[in-house]
Amino acid sequence: MSTSTLSDGSLNEGTFAAEDVPGVIDDYFFEGAEKLLEVWFDKNQDGAASLRNIPYSELVGMLDIAHCHILHSKSNECMDSYVLSESSMFVSDFRIILKTCGTTRLLHTIGRILHLAKIYCNMDNVISVFYSRKNFVHPERQLYPHSSFETEVDYLEQHFTGGSAYCIGPQRQNCWFLYTMVAPQAVFPFPDHTLEILMNGLPEDVLSVFNPSVSKDGKDCRMKSAINTILPPDIIIHEELFSPCGYSLNGLIPHSDHYITIHVTPEPDFSYVSFETNQNALNLSEQMLKVLEIFRPNKFLLTIFSNELSHEGKEVQKNLWGLKIPGCRRTNLQFLELPNETLVYVQFERVENMK
Amino acid sequence: MSTSTLSDGSLNEGTFAAEDVPGVIDDYFFEGAEKLLEVWFDKNQDGAASLRNIPYSELVGMLDIAHCHILHSKSNECMDSYVLSESSMFVSDFRIILKTCGTTRLLHTIGRILHLAKIYCNMDNVISVFYSRKNFVHPERQLYPHSSFETEVDYLEQHFTGGSAYCIGPQRQNCWFLYTMVAPQAVFPFPDHTLEILMNGLPEDVLSVFNPSVSKDGKDCRMKSAINTILPPDIIIHEELFSPCGYSLNGLIPHSDHYITIHVTPEPDFSYVSFETNQNALNLSEQMLKVLEIFRPNKFLLTIFSNELSHEGKEVQKNLWGLKIPGCRRTNLQFLELPNETLVYVQFERVENMK
Repeated sequence: MSTSTLSDGSLNEGTFAAEDVPGVIDDYFFEGAEKLLEVWFDKNQDGAASLRNIPYSELVGMLDIAHCHILHSKSNECMDSYVLSESSMFVSDFRIILKTCGTTRLLHTIGRILHLAKIYCNMDNVISVFYSRKNFVHPERQLYPHSSFETEVDYLEQHFTGGSAYCIGPQRQNCWFLYTMVAPQAVFPFPDHTLEILMNGLPEDVLSVFNPSVSKDGKDCRMKSAINTILPPDIIIHEELFSPCGYSLNGLIPHSDHYITIHVTPEPDFSYVSFETNQNALNLSEQMLKVLEIFRPNKFLLTIFSNELSHEGKEVQKNLWGLKIPGCRRTNLQFLELPNETLVYVQFERVENMK
Repeated sequence: MSTSTLSDGSLNEGTFAAEDVPGVIDDYFFEGAEKLLEVWFDKNQDGAASLRNIPYSELVGMLDIAHCHILHSKSNECMDSYVLSESSMFVSDFRIILKTCGTTRLLHTIGRILHLAKIYCNMDNVISVFYSRKNFVHPERQLYPHSSFETEVDYLEQHFTGGSAYCIGPQRQNCWFLYTMVAPQAVFPFPDHTLEILMNGLPEDVLSVFNPSVSKDGKDCRMKSAINTILPPDIIIHEELFSPCGYSLNGLIPHSDHYITIHVTPEPDFSYVSFETNQNALNLSEQMLKVLEIFRPNKFLLTIFSNELSHEGKEVQKNLWGLKIPGCRRTNLQFLELPNETLVYVQFERVENMK
């Protein structure tokens, strides 16, 4: 697919890039913003078995399709966590979360995921799908179908029916894309929420920690950056300091399928950090503010999905609605009602330098 | 611009059309969904004079660019109202509202509007712009730049800077596009709100009234349809029953720049009705419900803009949030914070036949 035939969606994203990113197209660049896929299977299907039955070698093969690989993994009773060469994967009994950055081809894994669920877990009934991402800085560097949200949705619709596609936030500035499908028979009789914080434009003193010249390993990054202060005390962690730079952390909350995942792209020209969690072990609103204190981004957006049963999620939504952050201006606030849950989306930008 | 080079935006709209509209591309079709432009000029500019100073002949020339013309007009102290061959225009001292349907080229008038404001009213300072429309059933039949929202926004950005473009609702189903620009110096020290109800799929007994074979003139349509029951008693009306079918009404609330405008496309294969008002003479929430009772659409969306000073607007927003309509299912609810106001958007579809 050549640039000239790209949809307007991606040209918009390109427009944004041209304003905010120094350097020309041939400069070194890494797209920190992740593609995020979450697929829920129907546990009530006859003979359904856990997705954790899928053999490791098959997961390796599946990730190979996306152009990434497993660095290391940890498990608790409920979930397997994988730190990847590009971001993270979490496999629970009936839910798989795959988050990949750079120029990975995440959506190409869908066919294989569905195939593996069928042959190893007797499940061919997908009850819910979420695919989301921030606008890319350089959509034209992405591989098909990721160079525009339109082609991504076309691709998703080859696998799923009845979904809806949204662009949240202003189309030609910072915005966030969401595809969601919920099967009519889907039931989620438990509290569920997911918080994401996507941050751009971080101060150099924050970023420098995530370099091997400053920190000796992942743990060193975590301690020096103060990320350790936002983690529950009993969390199971695995993490990676990348070469030449960059950092990933996966955390598992014991006895649950709750996770925290953090990814840092520390190059000053295109710095990006993501924080994502579905946990309720700590006060989520406080944790959210601490994340922002640690990373001090110039521009950031927060999304919180919550179903009706999640008091924690509803509470954070309410807090986001009225959230004031010293030195920052809210540039967008949107609320969206989806079939089984609601979404609150806010964007901020810094108006006073906090350095 | 050929169909093959249309942006994904318009192809999406086409996808919607293919599902919902019988008949092939050469069948007779009329796009009822209007393009709606609202431009506010800065009344505090030195030497600023009323937009109502623009000569009639110049308005005729401006509308000619859009491919429509004036049928008749009415005025009160604050505003001139025009019923057009395709929809309506309202000219106040510092605000112009132009709403045109079919394949009119509304956005082509912008250059002329800015020119006329400058030479007849000494105003070249636009403080606020809204451009909005529902997704078209047949975007490929529209003339440039209207065949996709992307090209419309490109066009708007040739005239205005600092605007934002939004797609509200699911991109590939019924949705609503909004471009809005508010100049940093804009001040709106008065209550302001606008309610729109855009309706599709009306029962034939409702539609039949808007035909010359059933009603003898506009007034007859108004009485037979019960539209008269939703109008304030002292409203100034002018209206039109079209041949072969169709109906338009403009109403001016005395001593104000408040209006009501209603447009009916009564062909059963592509029936469409729009209701728009900024009035607060009647209870707006009650009026909204009465409109839906009169037209009984199968699918409809409601939008309500309100600034902080409008109690009426805020009240309707609150009501929309919790609105239950017997026999109907809410398919979308969105809230959006804009620089000077907020927007609540809801979509419904009928699940029980009310005939």
